[in-house]
Amino acid sequence: MNINQLKVGLVGGTGEEGRGLALRWAIAGAQVSIGSRTQEKAKTAADELNQILETNEKRIAFVIGSGENREVIAASDFVLLTVPFAHAASTVDAHSSDFREGSILIDITVPVSFEQGRVRYVELSEGSASEHLKARLPETIPLVAAFKTEPAHLLAEINEPLDCDSFVASDSKDAKVRVMESLGFIEGLRPVDAGTLYSARTLERMTVFAIGINRRYKIKTARYRVIGL
Amino acid sequence: MNINQLKVGLVGGTGEEGRGLALRWAIAGAQVSIGSRTQEKAKTAADELNQILETNEKRIAFVIGSGENREVIAASDFVLLTVPFAHAASTVDAHSSDFREGSILIDITVPVSFEQGRVRYVELSEGSASEHLKARLPETIPLVAAFKTEPAHLLAEINEPLDCDSFVASDSKDAKVRVMESLGFIEGLRPVDAGTLYSARTLERMTVFAIGINRRYKIKTARYRVIGL
Repeated sequence: MNINQLKVGLVGGTGEEGRGLALRWAIAGAQVSIGSRTQEKAKTAADELNQILETNEKRIAFVIGSGENREVIAASDFVLLTVPFAHAASTVDAHSSDFREGSILIDITVPVSFEQGRVRYVELSEGSASEHLKARLPETIPLVAAFKTEPAHLLAEINEPLDCDSFVASDSKDAKVRVMESLGFIEGLRPVDAGTLYSARTLERMTVFAIGINRRYKIKTARYRVIGL
Repeated sequence: MNINQLKVGLVGGTGEEGRGLALRWAIAGAQVSIGSRTQEKAKTAADELNQILETNEKRIAFVIGSGENREVIAASDFVLLTVPFAHAASTVDAHSSDFREGSILIDITVPVSFEQGRVRYVELSEGSASEHLKARLPETIPLVAAFKTEPAHLLAEINEPLDCDSFVASDSKDAKVRVMESLGFIEGLRPVDAGTLYSARTLERMTVFAIGINRRYKIKTARYRVIGL
């Protein structure tokens, strides 16, 4: 595959995780666009990110585009859902007919709550956020769970090596393979085949668990590597 | 702490995981005893392990003892529950009054099933095997979840470096600290504070997830390390 031909759109890409992923994909060489509810908000975010890319030592030729969520979804091969989980279902509902044929929804959301200072996984009847969202998508659009366990804070610090595994799960083998191949172009990430979407139940809990480790050890970037692989 | 004073008993220690843990604790310098339902079965297992220790390059001075589960539990500081999950609750029920004051039950069980060739986590109403078992123990005996994610196969291969993290969770901070300190004597394991027993919900699923990785990648020893710690 040619990473330079890959169109990656970030829906709700103005948050920390969305911005970090936009930068990492742009550095990998993909054509990246930030989507937001308004063109203006998306453009502001993209301008900031292009500024970071231009002034950084990793300066690259590709610039990050922007648009309303609808436009970005319609133009992308990979649509990354980077809104907070609370807005994930309504965002998918609003845009389920905007996806173009052959595109893939990459779900990075994790349902998490903070109760009395404790971080907790929010149980969903479908078993995971990814399964919850897949049920709302047209069957023709495969959903891939990815970037669940990479810390948002680290993604945005582009001079910091990611140095971790990137778990990719989907009920569509083809979509999983396409995402894993592309992920291999992001420096420091090792794509790991995480099986079917059932695995999202574990991956999302691993994120909550990593947040707990961050708190106990007063760090910000706990993440995972599988040993023996 | 003095690891040479630590008495470690393995209940149902004749399986692969129990034998592996017996060897690793013995090499660490602890006083290890294998428990089984009959003295004879326990002795056979202990004899085999002592043979391995004597003929191995890591030959150590300590030998592994044996006894009925009841005796081993009554004599141990750490009681490791190494029976298959299906027998865990009945074993705890049968021996809940055998624990001596100040001892700790270390639960390593993971409820797993294989359905149509797929590995699945068995959901329990308490949320995890550890929480399920804790509810059956006297309140005076703390339960610590540990060794959930270390592969049984690897534990038993004592010439192979463990080279991974060892997640330790408990609602008793004191017990957790004691177990973490002791674990630090097992070569290649880095003890990681995994928080309260709530985390067992994640740790047990991580084991199931690792089994899935083993199958997909045709390996046997997938395990975890937290990066950034």
